[in-house]
Amino acid sequence: MSTRNNRLPAETYAAGILAGDRLLLSRAITLSESTLPSDQELSQEVLQQVLPHTGKSIRIGITGVPGVGKSSFIEVFGNYITSLPKKLAVLAIDPTSQISGGSIMGDKTRMETLSNHPLAFIRPSPAGNALGGVATHTRQALILCEAAGYEVIIIETVGVGQSETAVYHMTDFFLLLMLANAGDELQGMKRGIMEMADALVITKADGDNLNAAQTARVTYENALHLFPPSAKQWQPQALTCSAFTKAGIPEIWALVEKFYQHMQGKGLFDLHRQNQNLYWMHEIIKQTLEKQFYENTDVKRLLPNLQIDVQSGKITALSAALQLLNSLQKK
Amino acid sequence: MSTRNNRLPAETYAAGILAGDRLLLSRAITLSESTLPSDQELSQEVLQQVLPHTGKSIRIGITGVPGVGKSSFIEVFGNYITSLPKKLAVLAIDPTSQISGGSIMGDKTRMETLSNHPLAFIRPSPAGNALGGVATHTRQALILCEAAGYEVIIIETVGVGQSETAVYHMTDFFLLLMLANAGDELQGMKRGIMEMADALVITKADGDNLNAAQTARVTYENALHLFPPSAKQWQPQALTCSAFTKAGIPEIWALVEKFYQHMQGKGLFDLHRQNQNLYWMHEIIKQTLEKQFYENTDVKRLLPNLQIDVQSGKITALSAALQLLNSLQKK
Repeated sequence: MSTRNNRLPAETYAAGILAGDRLLLSRAITLSESTLPSDQELSQEVLQQVLPHTGKSIRIGITGVPGVGKSSFIEVFGNYITSLPKKLAVLAIDPTSQISGGSIMGDKTRMETLSNHPLAFIRPSPAGNALGGVATHTRQALILCEAAGYEVIIIETVGVGQSETAVYHMTDFFLLLMLANAGDELQGMKRGIMEMADALVITKADGDNLNAAQTARVTYENALHLFPPSAKQWQPQALTCSAFTKAGIPEIWALVEKFYQHMQGKGLFDLHRQNQNLYWMHEIIKQTLEKQFYENTDVKRLLPNLQIDVQSGKITALSAALQLLNSLQKK
Repeated sequence: MSTRNNRLPAETYAAGILAGDRLLLSRAITLSESTLPSDQELSQEVLQQVLPHTGKSIRIGITGVPGVGKSSFIEVFGNYITSLPKKLAVLAIDPTSQISGGSIMGDKTRMETLSNHPLAFIRPSPAGNALGGVATHTRQALILCEAAGYEVIIIETVGVGQSETAVYHMTDFFLLLMLANAGDELQGMKRGIMEMADALVITKADGDNLNAAQTARVTYENALHLFPPSAKQWQPQALTCSAFTKAGIPEIWALVEKFYQHMQGKGLFDLHRQNQNLYWMHEIIKQTLEKQFYENTDVKRLLPNLQIDVQSGKITALSAALQLLNSLQKK
């Protein structure tokens, strides 16, 4: 999407964002999503200017398989956060969407009350071909939202693809939503995701489902104790909630605050953010090197047959890798 | 380690290995670990010649933190396997060791009875600077052992570093050894490793420790049911064993056989191996690209300051990554 015709100077974006101007924030995010090199250059200038004013939010990643009730949860949890009152931004990674331009979610009924709240800012992160993938879009939007004074930033992801790992590495607190009746749901979940969670929340804990949710909570709580501790030195906890009765919502926010105090108290909060910054630098490099490699004409030509030969055990993985690597270095 | 002076033609190695000659197998593994380009070329020839005769073993990865009793377990488990009788090779990844040359483990008391068994072949995989890291050494040794007719191949790893993931991706069945009193042990364990396990075995289930081991088994068994299923469509199980009383050892082997039948029955065994081959091709490419990048003179010069700037939030991860990537492309 071109923004060529209505670009502003970097200073105008930056000043507007720092003053909390939602329209300029939206336009700066759109700019950061543009594929035009001149837009990218301008966007990097804006980011550079606001960067000293960022880093002060608490960043919460939320994931769960479709049907777990992510939108309902974020609507109710978000309304609780804005009632504190705290400024809240919600960034949603939708790997299937290429939509951009600052509109709210395609599904207009999603988070209806939250999206109309003056303290809330909701924005989808489009998929795209950015360096570092969709994560780069989302992290730039996150930086811009922080500069605009949003105190809590929720990053939502679908929980069945590759984006949870990215969200885990750009947030402070990673929250996994689960259903009480986990059997079916687990089929769609990505392995390894449970060990990333700082909190596991059983949704739909109301009515006939309440007992099952409470039982599931205890089961998961016990399981979470069996995991090796993370670098955060935080013992993940299991909770229940209902987006319908709103039970459990204040407790989830209280846990986030407890986590924040734990991280600050141990001097881990800034350290964790610093490590995340480094992680992304190396991740973007890695992804770019691989992209360049696999887009090379010789590699593209040789790869299909080599893949077949490697799969079938006709040649070793090393020998195939060397053929591909050498095809490039001969240039 | 040079093998320049006592190299044989590729056909001699290949024929010897296929005839089950342990000495030639040892020498071919040593050759594959050599850093001399001419040795590497000869080694690739040997591998290529034996490749059609490989793929028929069952490959078992075994990991656990130091103190869990890996050596004692492998000694007893290995003696059970050779008693069936089955030919068994044990490859041990020791990231701290640079030892090579076909000797058995540095610690001579390790696996004493097993290492003297005519059906057993024990070999450490040295760390090194191979393309794809230590994993490349181990995978080549694995291929050579398979060609030599070893029916079961155990790959042992320390379980606290990066090598477990590598072992997971080169074996069929991944076995995690744990102690009943998990609390302390978890400190050293890598997060995510539990979700890789096809079986979790509580060791030292004897004497005063028996009850605790049985309780731990049930706790872990319940937790394993909460994990999303893997591509293997296999429900991981928790077992107990004692290397002292030998209780539980036949049951672990029976589980491996059950797993093998499950994978064969569903047509997953070959598919899984094929995917692993592809994984390694891409992994070697990825690691080589990164190695070349970070060894570049300009990157080496720019990286330290950029890392500091990224960590401290002075510049964005994207901007630093671009500076490094551009420094290379200017050449």
